[in-house]
Parts: sequence; C-alpha cells; structure tokens
Amino acid sequence: MGYKKVDEKDITYIRQVIGDDERVLTNGDINEEYSHDELSGTSSYPDVVVRAKSAEEISKIMKYAYEHTIPVTPRGAGTGLVGSSVAMEHGIMIDSSLMNQILELDEENLTITVEPGVLLMELSAYVEDHDFFYPPDPGEKSATIGGNISTNAGGMRAVKYGVTRDYVRGLEVVLPDGTITEFGGKVVKNSSGYDLKDLMIGSEGTLGFITKAILKLLPLPKKVISLLIPFPTLEQAIDTVPLIIKSKSIPTAIEFMQREVIMDAEKYLGKAFPDHQADAYLLLKFDGNSVEEIENTYDQVAKLCLEQGALDVLISDTEEREESIWKARGAFLEAIKGSTTYMDEVDVVVPRNRVNEMVTYLHDLQKDVNIRIKSFGHAGDGNLHAYILKDQLNEQEWENRLNEAMDKAYEKAKELGGQVSGEHGIGYAKKQYLKESLPSVDLQLMNKIKQAFDPKNILNPHKIAQV
Amino acid sequence: MGYKKVDEKDITYIRQVIGDDERVLTNGDINEEYSHDELSGTSSYPDVVVRAKSAEEISKIMKYAYEHTIPVTPRGAGTGLVGSSVAMEHGIMIDSSLMNQILELDEENLTITVEPGVLLMELSAYVEDHDFFYPPDPGEKSATIGGNISTNAGGMRAVKYGVTRDYVRGLEVVLPDGTITEFGGKVVKNSSGYDLKDLMIGSEGTLGFITKAILKLLPLPKKVISLLIPFPTLEQAIDTVPLIIKSKSIPTAIEFMQREVIMDAEKYLGKAFPDHQADAYLLLKFDGNSVEEIENTYDQVAKLCLEQGALDVLISDTEEREESIWKARGAFLEAIKGSTTYMDEVDVVVPRNRVNEMVTYLHDLQKDVNIRIKSFGHAGDGNLHAYILKDQLNEQEWENRLNEAMDKAYEKAKELGGQVSGEHGIGYAKKQYLKESLPSVDLQLMNKIKQAFDPKNILNPHKIAQV
Repeated sequence: MGYKKVDEKDITYIRQVIGDDERVLTNGDINEEYSHDELSGTSSYPDVVVRAKSAEEISKIMKYAYEHTIPVTPRGAGTGLVGSSVAMEHGIMIDSSLMNQILELDEENLTITVEPGVLLMELSAYVEDHDFFYPPDPGEKSATIGGNISTNAGGMRAVKYGVTRDYVRGLEVVLPDGTITEFGGKVVKNSSGYDLKDLMIGSEGTLGFITKAILKLLPLPKKVISLLIPFPTLEQAIDTVPLIIKSKSIPTAIEFMQREVIMDAEKYLGKAFPDHQADAYLLLKFDGNSVEEIENTYDQVAKLCLEQGALDVLISDTEEREESIWKARGAFLEAIKGSTTYMDEVDVVVPRNRVNEMVTYLHDLQKDVNIRIKSFGHAGDGNLHAYILKDQLNEQEWENRLNEAMDKAYEKAKELGGQVSGEHGIGYAKKQYLKESLPSVDLQLMNKIKQAFDPKNILNPHKIAQV
Repeated sequence: MGYKKVDEKDITYIRQVIGDDERVLTNGDINEEYSHDELSGTSSYPDVVVRAKSAEEISKIMKYAYEHTIPVTPRGAGTGLVGSSVAMEHGIMIDSSLMNQILELDEENLTITVEPGVLLMELSAYVEDHDFFYPPDPGEKSATIGGNISTNAGGMRAVKYGVTRDYVRGLEVVLPDGTITEFGGKVVKNSSGYDLKDLMIGSEGTLGFITKAILKLLPLPKKVISLLIPFPTLEQAIDTVPLIIKSKSIPTAIEFMQREVIMDAEKYLGKAFPDHQADAYLLLKFDGNSVEEIENTYDQVAKLCLEQGALDVLISDTEEREESIWKARGAFLEAIKGSTTYMDEVDVVVPRNRVNEMVTYLHDLQKDVNIRIKSFGHAGDGNLHAYILKDQLNEQEWENRLNEAMDKAYEKAKELGGQVSGEHGIGYAKKQYLKESLPSVDLQLMNKIKQAFDPKNILNPHKIAQV
C-alpha cells in the first residue's frame, strides 16, 4: 500500500502535539487490548496510541499522517465485534476515550451535545437524571457514543424508536487530511445538499473521525412495563411477532430467548431468572405516560399471545423484577461467550415476518454443519444474533465448519431479503459477506466515496468494502 | 460542458425503446410546464420528454444518454420551488408521473412499496383507508413521492414524526450509467456498509433516478384534535413554542400564522377562517389513540399558552372545523402568490429556540430593504417560509431588493446556527446561498460524491453544489 512506517521522528512530533507523555503510548506501553476488539479474531498492533483530548489534537495528527501517508485507526471503547477498530496496517491509533465530556443539554431544542468518548451508560444516566430519554439501547452499555454512531448501533428499542441514526442531528468531524468540519446541526429539518451526516453514521471510522455529536432527545416516558411470555415452542413465539405488529400495538421492544441461553445467563450472573416453565420466551416492553395508557396496549397483546398458545403472561411492573429480566437479557452475549472456548457471530437482519424462517434455518444448520449455534435477538425488528461455538473443535475443524456455517447463514439471509449486518457493522471480519450480499455497483460506489473522502486511504484502511 | 445535442437519431432510438409515440414528446408537443417548476424563476426547455413507465425503460434511456453524453433531467409533478426539475442543459427529460402504481402493502412489516409517480395525496388516502399512517405531510399534496424523497420533504408533522427520510426503508435506483440497483430494503435495522440510501434521499435527482420506494408506515392514530390559539402579538406566540417543547408535551404540529396571511387565504379560498380576534396564532395538532390520552396532553399545553398571554384556546374537534383550519393553512403558499405579481421564497431552518429572532429579523427587513415579506411556517421544527413579494416593482428594482433581502435573510439564518433549506432543497435557485452557508470542504465532498456517481455529469447538471 506504500504506507510510511512510524519512526522516532513521527513519535517526537506526536509527543510535541500532545504535550503529555502519558497520552502517547509506544511499544511495550501499548496494552494488548489495543490489538483487538471484543470478538472478531482480528489482531494487529498499532505502532503508537494517542489518547486524544480535543479535535485540534486529532486534526494536527491527522494532517501530519496525511502528509506522510501514515495509517490512522480511530478507536472508542474497543467493544466492537467485527474488527472495525483494529489497526490492520499498524501506524497511529487515536483513542477517543478521554474525550468524555457532556458539553451541553439544550432543553429548548431537546438536544444534547457530547464528545465521542462518552459511554452509552453515562449518557443514558445523565439524560434520565434530567427527565429526558435517549432511546438507542444496544446491549453493550460500555460502548462509546462515537462507536455507536460509527456502527449505527441499534439495540432493543428499535421496534418503536429506531436506531442511533435517528438520533444524530449534527456531527463535528476531522477529515482524513486534518480539516475539521461539521455536518448537520441543531436543526430538526435539513434539505441543504447531500446528506454527509448520514454518510458518516455507520461508516465505522473510515471517512472521518467524529469529535462531537449533537443528539436528539425525547421526553422520558413516565412508566415502563415488561411482559415475559413463555411459549411451548420457539416457532410459536416467533410466529406471534408479525401478528403483534399487525395488531398495531407497537411495543418498545420484542425480544426472543430460549431456555438454554437463559440458563447460560443464570450461570454467568449467578442469579435466577424469574421463570423456567418453557423452552422459549418473548420479552416485550411497553412504555407510556400512564399505567392506564400502557395497560390498554398490552392487554390486547397479552390476549393475542394467549390465543397463539402462550403458556402464561407474566407482568413485570416492579423495578426489581424488571431489572432481573433485562439484566439476564443484557448478559446473553457474555454468557454464551463463557459457555464455550471461542465463538464468532452473525448479526443478520431480515424482514420481520421472515425471522422464523431464519431462526429455524439456523437451528437446523447445527446438525447440517455439526456445530453448536446459539441465537437470540430482536424479533421485533428482524435483527438476529447467532453465535457459532468452537467448543472442543481443533483449529482446522473449527475454521472449516465456521466458514461453512457462516456462508450458509448469510446466503439464507440474502434469500430472505435481509442484510449482512443489522447493527454490528462490517469492519474487517464481515467484508467477504458484504461483498457477496450487495450488488457489485453498490460496493464500487462505497469505494469511490471512500476515495472522495480519503484519497490516500490512510484512515482505517481494509474495512467495509475495501479489499 | 461538451454535451451532445439531441438529434433525430437519438429521438428515433428513444421512440423505439418506448414503443408508444404518445409517451415521447418533442418540439411543439412539449407543454410549457415542462420548462419550469412552481416558483424558482428558472426556465429551460428539454429537447425531448419521455413519460416513462418502468425502471427498464429508464435504464435503457439512461445507458444511451451516458454513452452519448446527453444530459438527463428527472421530473415528478413539477411542484418544486427551487428549479431542481428544470433541464438547464436541455437534453432528455424523464417524467415519472405515469409510474404511479402502489405495488404492495405489507401489513406484517408495516411497509408500502410504491412507484415514484404516486402522488402524496394518493398515498395518504390509500394507507388511511387501510388504517395505516404515512406521517410526512408537506403542504403540497399533489407532489410525487419520488419528488418528496428527492428533496427530503418535511411538512407539518415533523415536530413529532420527523421527515420523509425517516420513512424510507429502501430504494430502487437507476444510476447515471443505466445500472439498476437497490439501496436498503424491507429491514428495520441496517449497518451493512455506507448509507447510500440516505445519500440518495435529498439529492434532488442528481445521483440517480428513483424508480421504486419501500416506505415505512405507522398505525393510524385513532383521534386527532387541533388547537387554534390566538395571541396578542406574534412574538408572544412564538416565544411560547420552546416552552411547549420544554414542557415535554410533543404535539404533532406547531404552526404559526399571522392575520394578513389568513386574510389572503380567506380571499383565495372564498371561505371564512374560524377566528379573527388576533394578529397572530399558533395552530397545534395532537394525535393519539383516545380522546382522554390527547386531552391529558393538550390540557397542559393550553394552560401554558394562557399563562403566556394567549387570548383564547379554540379546540377543533369536529371534522368540519378541522378541515376549515387546515385547508386555510394548506392554501397559504398559493394565497400569498395570488396577492402579488411575482415572488421568491426562503425556506430557512433554524434551531427552534431561535425562530423568534429569525421572524423578527424578517419583519424588520421589510423596512430595511423596502419590500413586502410575508412569512409563516413550522414554528415547532424551526422551518420558516418567507415570501418576498415583487408587487409593482420594476425588474431592476425587484432584482436589487430581492437579492439584498435574500442575502441578509440567509446570513441571519447562518448566524443563528441554521441551514439554507429545511425542506424545499437547493436545486438551481439556491446554489449561491448553499455555497455561502456551508464550509467549502463540505461542498467539495458533495461534488466529489456527484463525480463518483456520475463521472460524465449527465444527470441533472448545475444543481446543488455544482457551479
């Protein structure tokens, strides 16, 4: 690729820009965690890690990197699952986790302005303390908001409230040549030229470095109630979801889960789940401004579920019960991870009336490929997380069976009108599947856009649509 | 630009592709309407108009145009206000108005799939007949949905429901070289590469020709109630808006209007407006699933308005009254147009707590520039429509004063953190103001993106960020 290797002169320049040696890490100072993310199996060390504190610092380093053709990799909390924040070409890694200030809560415009390193859980807690609501709710609460924007993270509440994209009003971005610019703003409507803001959202740190975000807030719903609904079979549970949607009651969340994943979570958390009677569950959440309002909605849905063969409808209206259910749900990824030696995942999204076909296919795939697969996910928005488990397989067998399972799962998703990733992104690990799923002209357009933003290809190379 | 002029051979080829001479118009057959849109003052005839019926027809013509470097201009109903659908370089105009089929209502995925020439009013009526709701609600109901997507049209309900962009799940597009492709799909979440779908939305027919759209629907709210609230002064009316937002009751719409515009509308419609006691009004809409639910919300807002000096709160809960108020609101543009010899408009959007500064500025600008300006708009989302009226001015005076008023209005909007266009787009008429309002690097990126999609610059040239 013709990148310049980082040398002592570069490090000296970087140290001079940052002026604080503890924020510039090299060689043995670079923690092993900076060489990978949470799952992808992708591993590569940066030559230097810069823990930036401002857009100006990032701008200066990016400008220098651009002039000298040194690759730069943006990184938040490193909780990604597809290798987006791994420095494939080494070079400079810019870590945004110290840029963690909440800059402004604007109650008249219902916006909050934050630095990219603010954690999702910090953001939620802050706005809820002020009686506001930031709806995107990915399972990983210790991700940064910059990372959430970069993958267009979705989460549980997408059924009713949409995804991260729907809550980003404006961005400050450092472009690959070091220019600081802005896309969007505090305005509610905008038809002023091409939508560069939405192009940046979900671009996984390949088009620019997000240094500030203006996010949209909603009033905090005054009341939240969940229903845990046991079904005799997973099929019956999932077949009920399109009927719920069709009934025009829109829950905040519709999750499905199976007994074995729940048991993994109990073991992982050391805490009992409130129900054990069934093989499969739907977990529904409703919110609103009064108990009556919510009851009107969920009564209808509860009736519908019972008609479809649900064994029971358990109402969770205490904070304690609510927490025990959703804590288990939040722990699924880690719990499954703890139940095996190693794993990889698919994050497909299909139209929501095809979820059952996809889940059944994944279930049967276990026998077909002779590998364990556990899945759970967002039945209400069609986004499934399936984990393929290594268990005691040797490396060669694991590679073979994993690849076969992945190929088949993505092919099936495509056949059902789905997409490769609902919320985790493409990064490095899922490139091949993106390539197989999209029209080649779409991939060409993506690479041309990348070139328009980054003609020297220094920012996070080898990701998404690039070879 | 080196475009090829359309000749007899080209016409023969086009007639052969279309196979129906009534759908290929040349010379004297081209209605004068095809040379302009509703407002921009931009005028230029195409050499040939093709009334396409399928993506395949458009693909063949585009491919031919690409090979021969003939400019192509997409057109819907021609209701634009900034010249986006005017054929600046002549060439081929492709009119989508015969592609007006509703292709599928999918109740399980809450989507509707339509051709681009379906009119907004046809779409609304169709989905409401099926008890669904397509929230975007621009004033111009006879626009095509393809046009709405191309300008990212906003409308009255943006306060609660957002804009067109928020309701587009997938697009079928013919690219400038004739390739037919798809962006997005029926899925609710998507993190599979760069967001080409949102890049297409709002690109005013410069990046591709939209031939099919998958739109998101919501359940139809069962009840809608409006409040008409007279205030002694416009300032008091508009100052109340941020307080309503801050009170966390989110109406569907918050519009402001002044007596003189209401009188224009009465004259234009030949129908009395239900109230005449005040100089300024707020018009609020609330929706929900029961009268009680809505009452709980609007009671609080009504109280707040009275505290802020409102003269009265008129509740419109009959269909007849509802229609008389909103029909007047819908007629404002035409009514103002009818009250003068000629006019031009600004469609600025500012943060909603700066609306009053903007409105006051526009009011004072009348004296400053010595020209009449009438404004109304979406107080709840910060999007103002101000009309600058020619009246009896001669051409030279009109040009001078219009330019001065425009320059000053856009400069003020920028100073308030606003954008050039909230929902009407940039097209040809507002290019200069876009250029003055955005960082130059943003404009450069837009032009590079245009080049990535359309290296020969044949699709709708001279629009948005192009010279």
